[in-house]
Amino acid sequence: MGNSLGKLFTVTSFGESHGSVVGVIIDGCPAGLPISEKDIQGEVDRRKPGRIIGTTSRAEEDRVEILSGVFDGKTTGAPVCLLVRNRDIDSSAYERMRFLPRPGHADYTAFMKYGGFNDYRGGGRFSGRITVSFVMAGAIARKLLEQLDIEVLAHTIEIGGVSAAPKDVGEVREVAAISPLRCADPAAAAEMTRVIERAREDGDSVGGIVEGIALNVPVGLGEPVFDTLEGELSKALFAIPAVKGVEFGSGFQAANRKGSENNDPFSIQQGKVITISNNAGGILGGISNGMPIVVRIAVKPTPSISKSQETVNLETMETAALEIKGRHDTCIVPRAVVVVEAMMAVTFCDLALRAGLMPRVMK
Amino acid sequence: MGNSLGKLFTVTSFGESHGSVVGVIIDGCPAGLPISEKDIQGEVDRRKPGRIIGTTSRAEEDRVEILSGVFDGKTTGAPVCLLVRNRDIDSSAYERMRFLPRPGHADYTAFMKYGGFNDYRGGGRFSGRITVSFVMAGAIARKLLEQLDIEVLAHTIEIGGVSAAPKDVGEVREVAAISPLRCADPAAAAEMTRVIERAREDGDSVGGIVEGIALNVPVGLGEPVFDTLEGELSKALFAIPAVKGVEFGSGFQAANRKGSENNDPFSIQQGKVITISNNAGGILGGISNGMPIVVRIAVKPTPSISKSQETVNLETMETAALEIKGRHDTCIVPRAVVVVEAMMAVTFCDLALRAGLMPRVMK
Amino acid sequence: MGNSLGKLFTVTSFGESHGSVVGVIIDGCPAGLPISEKDIQGEVDRRKPGRIIGTTSRAEEDRVEILSGVFDGKTTGAPVCLLVRNRDIDSSAYERMRFLPRPGHADYTAFMKYGGFNDYRGGGRFSGRITVSFVMAGAIARKLLEQLDIEVLAHTIEIGGVSAAPKDVGEVREVAAISPLRCADPAAAAEMTRVIERAREDGDSVGGIVEGIALNVPVGLGEPVFDTLEGELSKALFAIPAVKGVEFGSGFQAANRKGSENNDPFSIQQGKVITISNNAGGILGGISNGMPIVVRIAVKPTPSISKSQETVNLETMETAALEIKGRHDTCIVPRAVVVVEAMMAVTFCDLALRAGLMPRVMK
Amino acid sequence: MGNSLGKLFTVTSFGESHGSVVGVIIDGCPAGLPISEKDIQGEVDRRKPGRIIGTTSRAEEDRVEILSGVFDGKTTGAPVCLLVRNRDIDSSAYERMRFLPRPGHADYTAFMKYGGFNDYRGGGRFSGRITVSFVMAGAIARKLLEQLDIEVLAHTIEIGGVSAAPKDVGEVREVAAISPLRCADPAAAAEMTRVIERAREDGDSVGGIVEGIALNVPVGLGEPVFDTLEGELSKALFAIPAVKGVEFGSGFQAANRKGSENNDPFSIQQGKVITISNNAGGILGGISNGMPIVVRIAVKPTPSISKSQETVNLETMETAALEIKGRHDTCIVPRAVVVVEAMMAVTFCDLALRAGLMPRVMK
Repeated sequence: MGNSLGKLFTVTSFGESHGSVVGVIIDGCPAGLPISEKDIQGEVDRRKPGRIIGTTSRAEEDRVEILSGVFDGKTTGAPVCLLVRNRDIDSSAYERMRFLPRPGHADYTAFMKYGGFNDYRGGGRFSGRITVSFVMAGAIARKLLEQLDIEVLAHTIEIGGVSAAPKDVGEVREVAAISPLRCADPAAAAEMTRVIERAREDGDSVGGIVEGIALNVPVGLGEPVFDTLEGELSKALFAIPAVKGVEFGSGFQAANRKGSENNDPFSIQQGKVITISNNAGGILGGISNGMPIVVRIAVKPTPSISKSQETVNLETMETAALEIKGRHDTCIVPRAVVVVEAMMAVTFCDLALRAGLMPRVMK
Repeated sequence: MGNSLGKLFTVTSFGESHGSVVGVIIDGCPAGLPISEKDIQGEVDRRKPGRIIGTTSRAEEDRVEILSGVFDGKTTGAPVCLLVRNRDIDSSAYERMRFLPRPGHADYTAFMKYGGFNDYRGGGRFSGRITVSFVMAGAIARKLLEQLDIEVLAHTIEIGGVSAAPKDVGEVREVAAISPLRCADPAAAAEMTRVIERAREDGDSVGGIVEGIALNVPVGLGEPVFDTLEGELSKALFAIPAVKGVEFGSGFQAANRKGSENNDPFSIQQGKVITISNNAGGILGGISNGMPIVVRIAVKPTPSISKSQETVNLETMETAALEIKGRHDTCIVPRAVVVVEAMMAVTFCDLALRAGLMPRVMK
Repeated sequence: MGNSLGKLFTVTSFGESHGSVVGVIIDGCPAGLPISEKDIQGEVDRRKPGRIIGTTSRAEEDRVEILSGVFDGKTTGAPVCLLVRNRDIDSSAYERMRFLPRPGHADYTAFMKYGGFNDYRGGGRFSGRITVSFVMAGAIARKLLEQLDIEVLAHTIEIGGVSAAPKDVGEVREVAAISPLRCADPAAAAEMTRVIERAREDGDSVGGIVEGIALNVPVGLGEPVFDTLEGELSKALFAIPAVKGVEFGSGFQAANRKGSENNDPFSIQQGKVITISNNAGGILGGISNGMPIVVRIAVKPTPSISKSQETVNLETMETAALEIKGRHDTCIVPRAVVVVEAMMAVTFCDLALRAGLMPRVMK
Repeated sequence: MGNSLGKLFTVTSFGESHGSVVGVIIDGCPAGLPISEKDIQGEVDRRKPGRIIGTTSRAEEDRVEILSGVFDGKTTGAPVCLLVRNRDIDSSAYERMRFLPRPGHADYTAFMKYGGFNDYRGGGRFSGRITVSFVMAGAIARKLLEQLDIEVLAHTIEIGGVSAAPKDVGEVREVAAISPLRCADPAAAAEMTRVIERAREDGDSVGGIVEGIALNVPVGLGEPVFDTLEGELSKALFAIPAVKGVEFGSGFQAANRKGSENNDPFSIQQGKVITISNNAGGILGGISNGMPIVVRIAVKPTPSISKSQETVNLETMETAALEIKGRHDTCIVPRAVVVVEAMMAVTFCDLALRAGLMPRVMK
């Protein structure tokens, strides 16, 4: 249980890292949305390691298949099933580690929770590879949001302690899109690259911070008191492996501010109510206020490192040393960017439907 | 919609700040749990402004009534309805501000979402007063967790930029409990008090950070990939007004660490698997790993300040100046502590039931 | 758990037969609906035993209180809490029967499921009295449906083997409303009355059949394949104590017909697609087709009878004879009529919201 | 939306009659259950038209593929994805009928609800073919129930007005299993066969009644007041196309009985509480009472008939005559038997998990 997200726009993820497929069902997608395998493939390809520095050498073709819910090039209102096949599988390293949980990974908790029956190969359900299913669902969600003129974008703002300079949305949209690190600040990106390379040489890894932005979100998304926009977004974002923190607007900085500094004064612009600053990150009382939604997520350093680590053997209950071979990302941050966009988009679709702000049939 | 939380242990909040009651239904509470109005009253009293510096002068008796679900001093398995009456209501200030949304508050978004029909008095559903319903549900949840030997506690670790020194759990349990600021570091608390007093004199407000800790949580809470322990906790915590960030374990600091620094090595202690450090905050792969759960939340400065602020008149669509009178907390952080505990407890109960780790009938 | 119904228009029932209250929360009610305690009282009063033959002598005032969610005479978009107090309680009979489950009642299953902690007085949560909460929610739902011009009505079509002659909707609306047995056929009603009186004299009880009709339901309610209109309605109707069968349109008669007899030919009337007959009961493929929704429910004879019955003593595990005193209805059918209407109305509201056919804010 | 069923054991159906696949996700299946494609294939094969009289000539191989959630021959606790491919597709007949809704079918309601974007070929999502997904989920559910010694079986008790004589469970288990009509009464089955043949010759169709029985269901399944065992079962059963009525135990007959006739007296047998009769169909107060669960469903005659019927052209809005060619079942009842078993099994698994009566990990 726990593999479905959303109340009206419901995403159900399935598949394993080294099983036959990774897939997703989207139930509740409005009918009449034009969608093709190519559209979804485009998003999935953005997630691929490609030429990003410090990413896995696992080379998956990741060819998207639409199995249901699309007819004559448009969604039908029925559940959309999308999947990719796993092909470049090498599970040999995992058999050896079966009873040696990797520090920082889900190996131990999955072993305990599922009585040792979990598919441990390549991390099984807990692998970053599962986020392909998120990205496929996100591709559908983003197409839907386009119809409402909502734009979702994310970018890398910190890696290994190197921060990007603040950039305006236009730069983020254009520069981050073509940056191998999904970073809108080329100078910082160059320094991040060096940090990643150094970590890789050391058999180590680095983390970072991704910022997600959504533009043109209408007022009214979020269903307080419990299904707040922050709550639903954070739940969706914590589903991304390695995310350990989520903040909105001024976030943890707000803790250190005065009310007079942190409050966003209201004003009127072109007949519309706006706020002059956006410390709220576009959310007041758990409901979108029409300003850009701004969220930041902390990504921990990839737990898979080749340095020797201490662990325990769950069969013998003795301590053991572990060196992870396999193929891993030294820094997962740039690849998380497209996943952040996907989870944001999926959440907005669900909340827009709940708020009655999205039609059930597209024109 | 959106006023219910949890799948098997389901909390439904109702009531308004200046309506007749604030209440809660708990559905799914195992039968046979000894519970009295006094037990719940104890928790509700901990939330009261009391002698905490810089808190509201609204004086509510907050006498808890059990309306259903308890018979012969024990839960019956039926829904438990709890409520307190609102008595010390003064809505005069709000009538005047009806069309003048307070910066940083939900006034504007609620007005727009509910077509102006929302009960705006005292912030209505968006008031901090609604957290009485969270605390009442939390009181039941904490009694349940006691039966499983799970302890939940929270404390203030930062206010207005003043940080508390790290303390061990024993000190947190004893010192924070009797501290007016719920802070385990008396020296820092003294400085925090000064900061709050200064802000109040300035007609301003301050924010801070609360840390929640849960001890003796069994391995296996959390239902990935979407209903992760982080995801469910963060969703519950973002329901607390003014929370703008949530992080687990090393949280945002993890972004700046190496994998070799952030991974928690496994070891064996008294025949049990433990981790030597706890950067994961007790959660791996979205599932509790048996170590203490550690979460921190950023609380923004109370948006209600008496300093003049810019806003708009939603009737005339003109800009306006606003001075908030009313009775407000200069710093909500200490009062949020008990609410954090409540939301953590509620989430653990739901996930323990989902994981099959809590009986349906208490012995 | 299990005390909430509906996904967007969510009804949560609470309270016990001999506890302090019976109440309900409605979450998801659109904002701006005019509603008063008088409106809801009207529906609750229709459920009262009143002068109906063979009904309980328990005399509850059942004064409806609105505790939340209504402001200035209109719903606010926040959860609406409604309750009535229990006053005319006499639990003496039940104490004696605590370990003697009444045949046909929930006493045994509740005892086993809740480990003996259930509130057994007056049947607790399993009493017909709980349907007051359904009727209060139904009152709100019916007001909402009025805004969409949807009409829901139910009537008695069989009691104790006596069937009412078929009547057109106009007669049902007018005659059943003022009939003590909620029956549109006065001649049949007279005979039903005799059957009820005879059963009461014998210390026995009788059952019957209620038919529910909904007019002007738009095309499109129902979310197949699982949340069909039949499925959601039947689930709601089986929540009414004593209901043991539900059928739509030609129902069980359809089993005995040819396709050529049972299919409803399509035609056009005033520019709209209609069906010439309505064997489908207004539902095709689990979705409303614009014709009247027709559902019938079988109500078993009240299990509380004064005749001696065999049971077991759950403490001693010996067989025992049981004579039920208490105050009971000889025939619950007429009182079920308003409850059927309520559950139909509640289900339509939820499905109308889900289908995007009901606004979130009323004009 | 609406394509998922169950709260803890969640079944999500996808696929279309003439799309590429029909499939299902089961989320929440306990880990450690031995399962193979062969197990599931066995159930799917029981649903095939085979040599049953009056069934479709569409010949699908229906080879089951397990795409996820099973590793080393056992469930892992992750979502199980199962599917079959559609191969023997002939959509030519449907293109012609695109705007001519078939009486008794979902064509018209689907067209309206999904704005004409629905996949109309072969009935799309509304085809009986979708029940392959139910049967696959049911196969997993039945394996789980076996571990709890719960047995689910169904059989045909009426076709075209011909009723089977009552048989004891032993005969039902043995005779119905090998009967082409799934009927435990060979004499009645012979007569039913004649009725079906006659209908087919006439270009017509017949309906019938299926009875489902579950043995050894523990006391305690069902979560009143809304998620009753009757309510959850009926919702699941109404998802089967053509079902128009559901009754439990004495069902609609109860309406015509006295309380003294319909109540089931309690007694003790081998130290266990039983009821002497079973008019309740094993359910009291919405909760299983340990006796056999007995449910009957009314199946309407297949709406697809070759006789000419009246319909309307949705493009031109004119009346039209329709003759359905295609390949259809004259009587769907025997094929519904295995689907009834599947939906019962799925519902029991969900409610057993909710009641805490099924382990999360199988031994």
